[in-house]
Amino acid sequence: MKNLIVVISLVAISIPSIADEGMWTLDNFPKAAIKQKYGVDINDAWLETVKSSVARMDSGCSASFVSPNGLILTNHHCSMSCISQNSSIESDLEAGGFLAARAEDEVSCPTDRISVLMETEEITQQVARATVGKDDAEVGEARRQKLKRAVQDCEEISGLKCESVSLYNGGQYWLYKYRRYDDVRLVFAPERDIAAFGGDPDNFNFPRWCLDMSLLRVYEDGKPAATPNHLEWRKEGLEPGEAMFVAGRPGSTQRLLTVADLKFLRNVSIPQWLLRNVELRGRYIQYAGAGGEAYRTVQAPLQRIENGIKVQRKRLDALHNDELLSQKVVAERQLKAAVAANPKLAADVGTAWDDIERANDTYLQFRDDFYYIEVGGAFNGKLFNYARTLIRRAAEAGRANEERLRPYTEAALPRTKQLTLADRPFYPELETLQLSFSLDKMREILGPDSPLVHQILGRKSPAALAEELVSATQLDDPAVRAQLWEADLATIEASADPMMRLALDIDEKARSLRKRYEDEVEAPTDLAYEKIAKARFAIQGTSEYPDATFTLRISYGAHEGWQERGADVRPWTTLSGLFPRVTGDAPFRLPDSWADAKDTLAGDTKFNYVGTNDIIGGNSGSPVIDKDGKLVGLVFDGNIHSISGSYWFDSELNRTVAVHPEVMLESLHSIYDADYLLEEMGIR
Amino acid sequence: MKNLIVVISLVAISIPSIADEGMWTLDNFPKAAIKQKYGVDINDAWLETVKSSVARMDSGCSASFVSPNGLILTNHHCSMSCISQNSSIESDLEAGGFLAARAEDEVSCPTDRISVLMETEEITQQVARATVGKDDAEVGEARRQKLKRAVQDCEEISGLKCESVSLYNGGQYWLYKYRRYDDVRLVFAPERDIAAFGGDPDNFNFPRWCLDMSLLRVYEDGKPAATPNHLEWRKEGLEPGEAMFVAGRPGSTQRLLTVADLKFLRNVSIPQWLLRNVELRGRYIQYAGAGGEAYRTVQAPLQRIENGIKVQRKRLDALHNDELLSQKVVAERQLKAAVAANPKLAADVGTAWDDIERANDTYLQFRDDFYYIEVGGAFNGKLFNYARTLIRRAAEAGRANEERLRPYTEAALPRTKQLTLADRPFYPELETLQLSFSLDKMREILGPDSPLVHQILGRKSPAALAEELVSATQLDDPAVRAQLWEADLATIEASADPMMRLALDIDEKARSLRKRYEDEVEAPTDLAYEKIAKARFAIQGTSEYPDATFTLRISYGAHEGWQERGADVRPWTTLSGLFPRVTGDAPFRLPDSWADAKDTLAGDTKFNYVGTNDIIGGNSGSPVIDKDGKLVGLVFDGNIHSISGSYWFDSELNRTVAVHPEVMLESLHSIYDADYLLEEMGIR
Repeated sequence: MKNLIVVISLVAISIPSIADEGMWTLDNFPKAAIKQKYGVDINDAWLETVKSSVARMDSGCSASFVSPNGLILTNHHCSMSCISQNSSIESDLEAGGFLAARAEDEVSCPTDRISVLMETEEITQQVARATVGKDDAEVGEARRQKLKRAVQDCEEISGLKCESVSLYNGGQYWLYKYRRYDDVRLVFAPERDIAAFGGDPDNFNFPRWCLDMSLLRVYEDGKPAATPNHLEWRKEGLEPGEAMFVAGRPGSTQRLLTVADLKFLRNVSIPQWLLRNVELRGRYIQYAGAGGEAYRTVQAPLQRIENGIKVQRKRLDALHNDELLSQKVVAERQLKAAVAANPKLAADVGTAWDDIERANDTYLQFRDDFYYIEVGGAFNGKLFNYARTLIRRAAEAGRANEERLRPYTEAALPRTKQLTLADRPFYPELETLQLSFSLDKMREILGPDSPLVHQILGRKSPAALAEELVSATQLDDPAVRAQLWEADLATIEASADPMMRLALDIDEKARSLRKRYEDEVEAPTDLAYEKIAKARFAIQGTSEYPDATFTLRISYGAHEGWQERGADVRPWTTLSGLFPRVTGDAPFRLPDSWADAKDTLAGDTKFNYVGTNDIIGGNSGSPVIDKDGKLVGLVFDGNIHSISGSYWFDSELNRTVAVHPEVMLESLHSIYDADYLLEEMGIR
Repeated sequence: MKNLIVVISLVAISIPSIADEGMWTLDNFPKAAIKQKYGVDINDAWLETVKSSVARMDSGCSASFVSPNGLILTNHHCSMSCISQNSSIESDLEAGGFLAARAEDEVSCPTDRISVLMETEEITQQVARATVGKDDAEVGEARRQKLKRAVQDCEEISGLKCESVSLYNGGQYWLYKYRRYDDVRLVFAPERDIAAFGGDPDNFNFPRWCLDMSLLRVYEDGKPAATPNHLEWRKEGLEPGEAMFVAGRPGSTQRLLTVADLKFLRNVSIPQWLLRNVELRGRYIQYAGAGGEAYRTVQAPLQRIENGIKVQRKRLDALHNDELLSQKVVAERQLKAAVAANPKLAADVGTAWDDIERANDTYLQFRDDFYYIEVGGAFNGKLFNYARTLIRRAAEAGRANEERLRPYTEAALPRTKQLTLADRPFYPELETLQLSFSLDKMREILGPDSPLVHQILGRKSPAALAEELVSATQLDDPAVRAQLWEADLATIEASADPMMRLALDIDEKARSLRKRYEDEVEAPTDLAYEKIAKARFAIQGTSEYPDATFTLRISYGAHEGWQERGADVRPWTTLSGLFPRVTGDAPFRLPDSWADAKDTLAGDTKFNYVGTNDIIGGNSGSPVIDKDGKLVGLVFDGNIHSISGSYWFDSELNRTVAVHPEVMLESLHSIYDADYLLEEMGIR
């Protein structure tokens, strides 16, 4: 029943969202609904505080400023790449944790960047004008070029970093303008065993006991950045039932997908993703079994992949729920009927739904080639990606900015350069495993008779080619990459490096697959969704929130549990519940510092808690904020029912999971001896 | 369109099978249809020759007698367990192949048994009488007991080995009476690299070049058994387009499943199976990467699992074909309508379709527990299975035969004993991998808070417990197992062996899960299918073949290719096509003996070929027989389209793949120097 209400609310005109549903943009925040449900007045000052205190990490997480000196709170798992890039077998920061005793000890995070949203500007009309009079085939390219120009102009005029954002599946276009910090350093990280206590078995579960926090700091000109806008802590956290707000960058939802696209996910995309990555998981786990360096270096990719597997499995379960799917069918039929009843709309929308289905059929004809060759499914690991990036940088440099592939536009180049040249640790054995695995999958899926497979493998086995490439290439050396970054196309094309040669040999084919994808799949799909979005606007206005787009959103809800198989789940855990769960082995092992915490922290210290807010992947690291704009928690997960939130919001079961301020502040004081950080954050 | 015809033919009265569809029982062989389509007269003598020359392997394969002295032809992959049981790192028969120079050199296959069908007897009426007057809940148990009694009586009276067989989903019950050979020995096996050339990438593909053959021999009283009924070779094989027959034991098809059951497969069973086994595949491949003993010992389980993955993936694809599924929906609706139009039938069938759906819903509530604890999903490897079998043997011995679990009935005990006591090689590292993996999955799927998980793991990790159990148990010793096989229940229950203790500790819970499954899932499902089967009989008689049941069936067809993406596939390959496909690495590597074959065998020697026959897993090792009862090939695979044959027969694309007699006989002569075997088979 609950799901029916949710789904119908996507299309019916008269029924507003009655659940705590939605990841809302600031310009369309449902203040009245919140006032009505929670008696809380959200004013513009509150919104402004939230906007300027909340940050985005390029790694795909959210974060918030928690001191005037650039100190940032996010999850431990959001800092994993920084932590592992600073680890070695002698000094394993994942296992042992990290605390910079002084500012000088804070270590650089070579691939992290932090952005704060300063302004937004709607450009829907300008974009529409740029595509006027174009036929369907030209619209996609015209819009892409217009958006790239708009971003370039924006950066020149504002001096900020700009990004174009499409909301409501093309119903609106915006420029989002960011202040960006490129110098990010690690301040504090607890030990992995307490940060991710329960590991994959407990991931997306609750009750939980994870100190999934870390502290970073942004620097400007070599000094801690001044961040007068930041959140202040409310140590004791929320009262049960109290209103709570989550501000962050939810990555992506698919609540407005057509039924054809949902079925494509169910029948094709998700099963294929899962079957590939579950096998890779098996390889990683067996590899880790060797212990030592193998165990240590594989933890970060393993953790990422296990998280992804859990998400995709639950998404698949959601899509296999025939009842929910048939509600989507009904909702789509209703929207179509409303469109058909309005001749003007009907003419505008045309065959949009069929167009999407047709684009999917076309996609199936070359999706495997596209995925393996252009998306890089055949080339796991860092090395091939370096090669391709270096080649395309040189090739794209010769084109006008708006005609370049997006990572090579002026706005995106600095990030591309940072990712390519960063001096990251290199583990040849793990790289070989990854490349060998993906080449093997390529041969399996494209088949041993595919001309592409012949071209890439020749008469070599995937394992042999992987080993040869990883040991012979010099692209693991940042200096070599830096040199090639500056090289012109002729020099690049003459490279004798075997990984460069491989990437050069297939680049034309790879680009042609991308072109085909853009022209025959992406363009018609985008156009169709834009038509459907316009129809939706015409029928229901912006009473609904747009799908998540990794841009700033705020969700509202209350600190409440749920019912699981007839039993109430208490909405928080305390320290005393942790110890009975401990075994001697990962992932239910405690670091020594915590094994003693029985005596140093009070047993009733609140640990993790849940709320009814609507979140999704990308919200990791989001602050939980109370009605007064105070920091009352750190989002690090959703419960298992939150995963179906990709497609619909289940208000009775879907819950946000957060770290409680008590355990963060108390452990910084009693376990980690970090009183100077507490002081900086205005505690005590 | 083709599929529509097939599916509708399952329910419509007036449309006979027009394709080469069906795995037919001998009592209902469609002689008229064959005469009409191929102009071939199949008489009773032909059928009798086929019946007495074709054998079943307990391992799940088919085979045929090819000499008067007990010589048996089957696939290499059907003899893999025998080959690997006789291999060691010093003498690796998988890698190097095997040829017994003299009879004394033939080596024992400790877990193989060969059965030949002697008689069949329909007992549908007797079974029906045994369940008269029982209510729905009692019918299942009453029928199970009746069948066990019937088997016992049959064995006593006939002196043969008897099995009960249910055809048409309970529409008919039969006794199948076999002559059984327990002493099976290996005579010849080629090297794995030519037997399975192309490995997993080429599995289910065509064109192919696999010498997937082996020769076994059955013994009686220590001497080669006399087998006057055997097949004679037709060296040159079939003409293109000629009629061909495949006789063997297709294992299982699901062409009569209800839509609810098809969706259960699509949404639950197949995805769960795949996700588990694809991860295990990753573990195996990474384990094999260590080379040496690890590589060698993991090949057999890896090959099995890769074959299974390919099958299940393609089945899932078939079930994701919404068009085919909606044809099943239509067919089911038609059958329901025909039933509803007949008040007597309607009363008999009742709510059968809904009952199946309800049983599935019930199953979902405890399926994970049932699978992990009773089916053994938590306990991969041989050791736990030994423990459980020894415990249950002792426990079941105290019950009347018909009340025992099936593996412990008098008819089944000898096989159970053979499997339990056979002296098979034991690889502790591989066992630990398998057990650790499955315990890990148990914790993942049942969750760390499951009482069963707590009971089994305590505070240990899956890896630690697995290592401890494998190293501490003595069940790897056949002498210990032999002793426990003879022990009484009290002795068993007092065992201190840790694996026995684990199995003892959970046996009550495991049995209660089985009971629940039998009472709440199996019984109502069987009853419902029986009702539907009776309705089907009433409407269409036995104009259709029953689903495959690992019993003797013959399919008919022609030596013809098919069209793949608009291009004709030539229905055979020749030796000259092999060499361009060779690389230096497995699975596209040739053994030395074959690398030279370019010079010893003619390039136009026919290698593998295809036909239009309807087959399925279990047909591996089946002879291909011509209109005169001559041996013209050895089935070892189907093409990729054959996999959807689980659910429907696609006559345009579904093809059987066989080894050609030319390559078998020529390589025995020129490459393997086995002229004495050729002579025994009457060649030259």
